[in-house]
Amino acid sequence: MSDTFHGPSDTPENPFPLLSTIDDPADLRRLPSSELKQLAAELRGFLIDSVSRTGGHLAAGLGVVELSIALHYVFDTPRDRIVWDVGHQAYPHKILTGRRDRMARMRQQGGLSGFPKRAESPYDTFGVGHSSTSISAALGMAIAAKQKGEPRQIIAVIGDGALSAGMAFEALNHGGPLDPDLMIILNDNEMSISPPVGAISSHLARLLSGGLYTKMREGSKTALRGMPQLRELVGRWEEHVKGMVMPSTLFEELGFNYIGPVDGHDIDAVVGTLRNMKRMPGPRLLHLITQKGHGYEPAEHAPTTYHGVTPFDLKTGAVAKKGGGKSYTQIFGDWLCHRAEADDRLLGITPAMREGSGLVEFSERFPQRYFDVGIAEQHAVTLAAGMACEGMKPVVAIYSTFLQRGYDQLAHDVCLQGLDVTFAVDRAGLVGADGPTHAGAFDYSYARPLPNLVIMAPADENECWWMLEAAYAHEGPAIVRYPRGTGPGVAIDKAGGRPIPIGEAEVRREGRDVALLAFGSRVAAAEVVGERLNATVVNMRFVKPLDDPLILDMAERHQLLVTVEENAVAGGAGSAISELLAEQGVTVRCLHLGLPDRCQEQATHGQQLAACGLDEDGIESAVRAELRDLGLDKAPLHGASTG
Amino acid sequence: MSDTFHGPSDTPENPFPLLSTIDDPADLRRLPSSELKQLAAELRGFLIDSVSRTGGHLAAGLGVVELSIALHYVFDTPRDRIVWDVGHQAYPHKILTGRRDRMARMRQQGGLSGFPKRAESPYDTFGVGHSSTSISAALGMAIAAKQKGEPRQIIAVIGDGALSAGMAFEALNHGGPLDPDLMIILNDNEMSISPPVGAISSHLARLLSGGLYTKMREGSKTALRGMPQLRELVGRWEEHVKGMVMPSTLFEELGFNYIGPVDGHDIDAVVGTLRNMKRMPGPRLLHLITQKGHGYEPAEHAPTTYHGVTPFDLKTGAVAKKGGGKSYTQIFGDWLCHRAEADDRLLGITPAMREGSGLVEFSERFPQRYFDVGIAEQHAVTLAAGMACEGMKPVVAIYSTFLQRGYDQLAHDVCLQGLDVTFAVDRAGLVGADGPTHAGAFDYSYARPLPNLVIMAPADENECWWMLEAAYAHEGPAIVRYPRGTGPGVAIDKAGGRPIPIGEAEVRREGRDVALLAFGSRVAAAEVVGERLNATVVNMRFVKPLDDPLILDMAERHQLLVTVEENAVAGGAGSAISELLAEQGVTVRCLHLGLPDRCQEQATHGQQLAACGLDEDGIESAVRAELRDLGLDKAPLHGASTG
Repeated sequence: MSDTFHGPSDTPENPFPLLSTIDDPADLRRLPSSELKQLAAELRGFLIDSVSRTGGHLAAGLGVVELSIALHYVFDTPRDRIVWDVGHQAYPHKILTGRRDRMARMRQQGGLSGFPKRAESPYDTFGVGHSSTSISAALGMAIAAKQKGEPRQIIAVIGDGALSAGMAFEALNHGGPLDPDLMIILNDNEMSISPPVGAISSHLARLLSGGLYTKMREGSKTALRGMPQLRELVGRWEEHVKGMVMPSTLFEELGFNYIGPVDGHDIDAVVGTLRNMKRMPGPRLLHLITQKGHGYEPAEHAPTTYHGVTPFDLKTGAVAKKGGGKSYTQIFGDWLCHRAEADDRLLGITPAMREGSGLVEFSERFPQRYFDVGIAEQHAVTLAAGMACEGMKPVVAIYSTFLQRGYDQLAHDVCLQGLDVTFAVDRAGLVGADGPTHAGAFDYSYARPLPNLVIMAPADENECWWMLEAAYAHEGPAIVRYPRGTGPGVAIDKAGGRPIPIGEAEVRREGRDVALLAFGSRVAAAEVVGERLNATVVNMRFVKPLDDPLILDMAERHQLLVTVEENAVAGGAGSAISELLAEQGVTVRCLHLGLPDRCQEQATHGQQLAACGLDEDGIESAVRAELRDLGLDKAPLHGASTG
Repeated sequence: MSDTFHGPSDTPENPFPLLSTIDDPADLRRLPSSELKQLAAELRGFLIDSVSRTGGHLAAGLGVVELSIALHYVFDTPRDRIVWDVGHQAYPHKILTGRRDRMARMRQQGGLSGFPKRAESPYDTFGVGHSSTSISAALGMAIAAKQKGEPRQIIAVIGDGALSAGMAFEALNHGGPLDPDLMIILNDNEMSISPPVGAISSHLARLLSGGLYTKMREGSKTALRGMPQLRELVGRWEEHVKGMVMPSTLFEELGFNYIGPVDGHDIDAVVGTLRNMKRMPGPRLLHLITQKGHGYEPAEHAPTTYHGVTPFDLKTGAVAKKGGGKSYTQIFGDWLCHRAEADDRLLGITPAMREGSGLVEFSERFPQRYFDVGIAEQHAVTLAAGMACEGMKPVVAIYSTFLQRGYDQLAHDVCLQGLDVTFAVDRAGLVGADGPTHAGAFDYSYARPLPNLVIMAPADENECWWMLEAAYAHEGPAIVRYPRGTGPGVAIDKAGGRPIPIGEAEVRREGRDVALLAFGSRVAAAEVVGERLNATVVNMRFVKPLDDPLILDMAERHQLLVTVEENAVAGGAGSAISELLAEQGVTVRCLHLGLPDRCQEQATHGQQLAACGLDEDGIESAVRAELRDLGLDKAPLHGASTG
């Protein structure tokens, strides 16, 4: 492509002369429209350069460079409200709204969030991260504006993928008949732009959004007032004439005035259409065709690779390979294929997370048994329930934070009926740079009260494999929850292992005075602390059912129980242990270490753990303080470091 | 209407001669089709008679008498699978499938469930209660049937209201392109059947579902194979021709072959159409027009009254008036109007629960500030978040069990951003006859870990009022959760009261040895037990934030703390107290009374409380056992009864 970017080093000292003058959208709005194309080229270059250094989300941002400029150019932001859906695509918006210099600390501790965030800027009207919330939020804003008598434009920008989620449909369905002053921009990057269609449609779109058509439409409505049947007929005719050339019908049926499709990389077309649409009243939808990764050849060819990316070489596009062993995600993917080979009842389900959940190989080897349902977590869970009713063995691969979307389905459709569904819950615990919207901080708490559910968390890679085997063999609902990234590096013993018996914990180390009862990802750290303090260490494995006899034995033989988990303390695994002790009438000093009651802000995973006191040193010092309080610190404890 | 039922007493000894011969669907399938109309009349009569005695859901069942007969007549149930959505309408299905005699114990302890339930009958293919799950479940079954090579028909029956929920759309969106052998019956009871439209459409529908049309359609597809563009054009033309006369477009766009609308009370038309559609391959949708309450005049005129009804007089339709004081629902409704008068920032939101949530008066007095979003809990919550961003004060009225549908939105869109949304969470705790699908058993557990959220539960009517005031005044997210039905009967002191200070508990009684820390609906019972045992009783009021100093004081001054709540013990309010004690290094004997880890089966509310040990006697005996264990039972305790 002619506007492909080749890196700033080929250009003189300031490679971004126009962009450097844009410190906020007011500066942008002072430019003549003839300069916008140049600005788009610079913005694209700056974005690529910036993300190549910091890593982050690239392809989505490249797709909306022109749209981001056009929105801030045409609309009076921040008085007019732009609501970005999901937010992967908001980097150009951030660069244009006073945060250019802070892009260097994208997704770092104390730096810019990778998503729109209300606390960060008045231009970030709604905090996002999860998909498909923008229409609901924007509709709420439009209703508020009307109530307050504050005329302002509200614009929701949503991708075609995000439209598959039920809540986007709920919002369209509710919103259309309310006739709000609301514009939706459908950022459609699945359709490729074959030039003739794009050209004709752009032309049509500009015609349609121009004054003539609006007048005709309004005029005929006025003329037909009081003749509802005839008006309806005219409306249908109009809809169907448009439907013959454009994919408008769904939106028109829901009450939105459909305009498009428009080539989203033709900045003049986008600006012109937005200007026309700004003057139209009521609910409107602009269908924009864009290309993920547009303008950076490596990203155009591999948009999935450059969706979220580590730092990369600007010239070649070479992305730094991730080192280390297999991630839990990969272990799950391997296990799924292994189990599917042996058992043709196995069906694999993902809500639009094939790559992220490790399902690429499974999808290729077992295409008839692979179900990507789109961004549709509710449906994913109940679909599995239906399969289980018929004796199949569905496995739902889902992130902890996204299972929140399917919570009622987990409770009502799966657990209440005790159906045999296995949930592979990935990204459980802290997730680093993605920050609080993506942290898997609550799954123990929300899953624990559900009847019939087994909940387990592996301490290492081998255990993950054999827990998946156990969950799959168990004839009822079961969750295996594992963290982002790699584990301690334990080899998987496929030949010599056995499925973990349900409810059986494992003593990893015998010590004295204090027992560390650790869950999942925190077992390895607890072992280190156990060595330092000569403490007993238990790999709890199960949050539900607990290993009651072992816990009661630990309570009897120790003066302090310390629970350690990567989940909120509130209602978490430690709480489950306190509940058991209360039920059994046992009083023993307990300390619950887990995520504190606040948002888990972005940082590296290590920084996050340290901030929560869940790294080795944090655990050690918390235990030491408690021991001091118990008068047990007097004797120097056996062990190595003192932290 | 000619087929209106006037009660069985006008007829000879056996008023249901034909129905009496139908002990299962195989009996039904032996009838000549000429007798089906008579059977429908008897089934309708039996249903009305039965529900007039037991109470339960009536209007929905009356709307599907003909459909229920036709489905079991045309399809080979239970080999073919019928999935009823929500399940309010499944009484005729239950009567036809061997449960006629058990209708007398509908919704009673040990009796029939008011909803389809897998454990109850092989004809109940999927347990329901919450709306809009049927298409997902049926699609899962259809996929399973294909995988197993077991040819069977799968039919989901869904109401037009249930289609507004996102998960139904997710399932349609995913399902259409998979081309499953799946039939959806859209039971549309909002459209009235104006005779000409109905007649023409029934005729059209039978034409369309007959062999000729299918052959044409298949034929042109075959002929056009390899010419995708032309095929698409023909497809569009076909779609639009049908679209001119039928509301088919949405479903056709989603890949379903649309047939209808058909008069759902014309049993010959329904049987004939189903027979034709049975032979059609792929995803099909039949649009049926029915009338809620059909055939029983009082219910036809007031379908909302007869949706769920107490026992009523068969001849007159007179429904027994509910006695007693104001329900919490009514108090909320009164408060909402009161607050809305004073503050025009208040906006009220309900997901299709105007009557159930006490919003009728508000909707009439403040129509511009009333938002019924349809069955769309996800959207309801995020819509409120958007409103709050703009300085409005949204109040979301929602049942505890349905807030599970908006859990991610509560977490991600509201709490993470600390937005000022008030949640009036009704039907929290046990709900009696509606059983486990509607129990509000988990809200403390799932809401507790969410940052920035205030959670409170009133002990009585007056406190409910002033907690709503407190939640509304609090500039952040807050939940007031209250039970179904009435409270202890405390008058509301609008003049002399004040908003409950956030986090402040209230000592209701000073006693010795044991402190009962009670939440919400269990405070009154705890007071009775406190009198019997001379125990201290605290009305905790807040689950989050807790009244830390008061709890620590209680722990110091008592040898046993007993927490009492109408929520799951797992992760519930009692757990929160244990977490605080652990954090503060306090060891004291604790007993957590709450809902046990099992489904809360239907019964009266009193029976349910007793079964969970949460009535006065249950609490007393649990406390006595604990006191005995602590060696504190020796001295006869001051107080009245010994339970």
